[in-house]
Amino acid sequence: MKPSLKIGIAGLGTVGSGLIRLILERKDELELRAGRAIEITAISARDKKIDRGYDISSYIWHDNPLELVFDSNVDVVVELIGGSDGIAKDLILAAIENGKHVVTANKALIAHYGTSIANAAESAGVSFSYEAAVAGGIPIIKSLREGLAGNKLNRVYGVLNGTCNYILTTMEEQGREFEDILVECQKLGYAESDPSFDIDGIDTAHKLAILASIAFGGEVNFNSVHVEGIRHISPIDMKFAEELGFRIKLLGIASIQNEMLEQRVHPCMVPNGNPISKVSGSTNAVVADGNFVGTIIQEGAGAGAGPTASAVASDIIDIAHGLRVPTFGVPAKQLQSFPTVSMQNHRGEFYIRLMVVDKPGVFADIAAALRDHEVSIESVLQRTRDPGEAVPVVMTLHETKESSMTDSLKKIAAIGAVVEPPLMIRIESL
Amino acid sequence: MKPSLKIGIAGLGTVGSGLIRLILERKDELELRAGRAIEITAISARDKKIDRGYDISSYIWHDNPLELVFDSNVDVVVELIGGSDGIAKDLILAAIENGKHVVTANKALIAHYGTSIANAAESAGVSFSYEAAVAGGIPIIKSLREGLAGNKLNRVYGVLNGTCNYILTTMEEQGREFEDILVECQKLGYAESDPSFDIDGIDTAHKLAILASIAFGGEVNFNSVHVEGIRHISPIDMKFAEELGFRIKLLGIASIQNEMLEQRVHPCMVPNGNPISKVSGSTNAVVADGNFVGTIIQEGAGAGAGPTASAVASDIIDIAHGLRVPTFGVPAKQLQSFPTVSMQNHRGEFYIRLMVVDKPGVFADIAAALRDHEVSIESVLQRTRDPGEAVPVVMTLHETKESSMTDSLKKIAAIGAVVEPPLMIRIESL
Repeated sequence: MKPSLKIGIAGLGTVGSGLIRLILERKDELELRAGRAIEITAISARDKKIDRGYDISSYIWHDNPLELVFDSNVDVVVELIGGSDGIAKDLILAAIENGKHVVTANKALIAHYGTSIANAAESAGVSFSYEAAVAGGIPIIKSLREGLAGNKLNRVYGVLNGTCNYILTTMEEQGREFEDILVECQKLGYAESDPSFDIDGIDTAHKLAILASIAFGGEVNFNSVHVEGIRHISPIDMKFAEELGFRIKLLGIASIQNEMLEQRVHPCMVPNGNPISKVSGSTNAVVADGNFVGTIIQEGAGAGAGPTASAVASDIIDIAHGLRVPTFGVPAKQLQSFPTVSMQNHRGEFYIRLMVVDKPGVFADIAAALRDHEVSIESVLQRTRDPGEAVPVVMTLHETKESSMTDSLKKIAAIGAVVEPPLMIRIESL
Repeated sequence: MKPSLKIGIAGLGTVGSGLIRLILERKDELELRAGRAIEITAISARDKKIDRGYDISSYIWHDNPLELVFDSNVDVVVELIGGSDGIAKDLILAAIENGKHVVTANKALIAHYGTSIANAAESAGVSFSYEAAVAGGIPIIKSLREGLAGNKLNRVYGVLNGTCNYILTTMEEQGREFEDILVECQKLGYAESDPSFDIDGIDTAHKLAILASIAFGGEVNFNSVHVEGIRHISPIDMKFAEELGFRIKLLGIASIQNEMLEQRVHPCMVPNGNPISKVSGSTNAVVADGNFVGTIIQEGAGAGAGPTASAVASDIIDIAHGLRVPTFGVPAKQLQSFPTVSMQNHRGEFYIRLMVVDKPGVFADIAAALRDHEVSIESVLQRTRDPGEAVPVVMTLHETKESSMTDSLKKIAAIGAVVEPPLMIRIESL
């Protein structure tokens, strides 16, 4: 039997505490499955005195997480502090430099510095593992990096943020306003007090950039992700979506076309028949399209103490076994730097909703604006009539270039009878 | 760079040919992702002369697959011959004994001899890999064995046979008879000329026994799987299922309760809301319930040249990296031998359909038979009336012991007005 693998944990919030519980509760089974004992030896957190519901007295306590790096009782540093800069980054780089393996759940950090950290880890010959960074307990990193490694993956996409999906699902089911549900989520602790990372799509973009790197063998390129959130979605759009046979989901979608990388995060109208349309509540789902395997879908809890601890534990077990592949599947030095497709060059179908004063002739002006940019109408819905008042007019548009759509929407916005900025949601048949 | 990994392939049917295409087409990327070149060096198949659409002249040809074992140009023997005994088994055991890694897609063989082969491979210090044996391209073996290794898995289940699911889906959509669709499938090459492995549930049982071993850390125990197929399912049951809010799926379900193993394969009524009810056509899906991760669902193509080649390739890439964990997650010598739950002790809800001569008093006799065995009625449907003629009566029954259900069905069958053997389908809320 190999000597035990000694774990130092930085950060004892929800995930850190979940991990400690898992390691204590599953002690014998982990030893069986990892081929050696997994032993927590040292910890570091902000406050030593908080009652966390478990006994920490047998662990070496470090006030400064960086001390874990120099503690000879630590083989693996588990970084659960979070944040793309500051102490989390310092800790990870110092640990790698000092020959310690690193496990983290820190998507923001990897999205920003993934390639350079991978380079450092691969040069130092240590593991840098991050299964918990994307889609919680779904073993999607391992699946893409190892399980589907024989394929050319052309596309990877999914529902990657549970908070957004919960809000959208609740809007759909209860017909309530976005703002209203967000406040409720914050009260219940489902959403952060500063919710912008979640609802403005940034968290999804972090995760998407990581998935895209593994799927396509490219450098992590967070900066090129087109990002939109869900603040502008209304119950009225949910109703029209239902009528048109769609559901509204915030998706992250990355693809390679002609060796160009496209990464985008925005609300989508997804046809009801598509499995991704049925992902509800705080569930996450990731879909990968490969040239041999076809389409693989994985679904599960995207966050929470248990699922995240499960993912961190799988990384630790891999390290215990000595399993190590390049951080993003391809050696960091050989990751490609793909040229990127700008959103304006994207082609797709669109849903638009206009608030229009109900009087003769307006529709002719709208149709002309679309025609001028060669945007072709698929369907028009005007369900309510209220002469002289503003009513919603919804249109779906055939595939066209994004820039044609935005240009025609500018013209439409300038029409006097169009009384609100037009709302646009992309239709994704997937 | 490490020397190339040299592959010998036994069996050049659909999967073998798919693998050769993958390795040739993805040569450079495989080298990048595997850290070394993957090179096919030797092959063996029944007929050297068949035109397979690719050139085999650069590979060493062996008339007898066993010669691959003694070929010093082979590091990995890929067994794609199939069959639970005979040459496939001899080949695998000889390869392991001679220090060669083995990759196979042979579920029948693993279901019967998995534990002893794992013992042999682990003693010899070689890999015995079989990602392709279960659920085609879905990386479910790796997910359970490594990705969810931190969890106590309590249950694993799924749609594991694409042919059955295709037939059931088509029956549902087109209202056609089982036999009719089966014949069509055979003509189209979707079903074997001897279809019993598929439609009698044996193939599903093979796969289930493998999944259960990994999930629960037990010896592969195919013999204790309760197996029923789908031959007895009729379009009329599809209709009643729809009316009751169910879909009929052939599921393999394995669980651990009180340290007892239950493994069963049979048609199930699955509530419409459950994701597994929506798995259609030849798609496979596997669900795992873990104590930390919650529920993880994976879906994808369960068979075919591409998906299966993808799975075999991932095993080969793992071997190229030197990644090796125990065959079933836990070292073979430490796999548990769980006591098993007999089907008669299983508890569940039930759907029954009786063909009954429509005359007064029959229902009282049926109700009495159920009461005598403490089986409690949840709902009764008799949609057609045809006095003096046989009409279907459908009942759903509250949770009860399987033996109570079968005993009361025996009594019901003996009632004179019940003119066909009662049909029973288990309801699985999952």
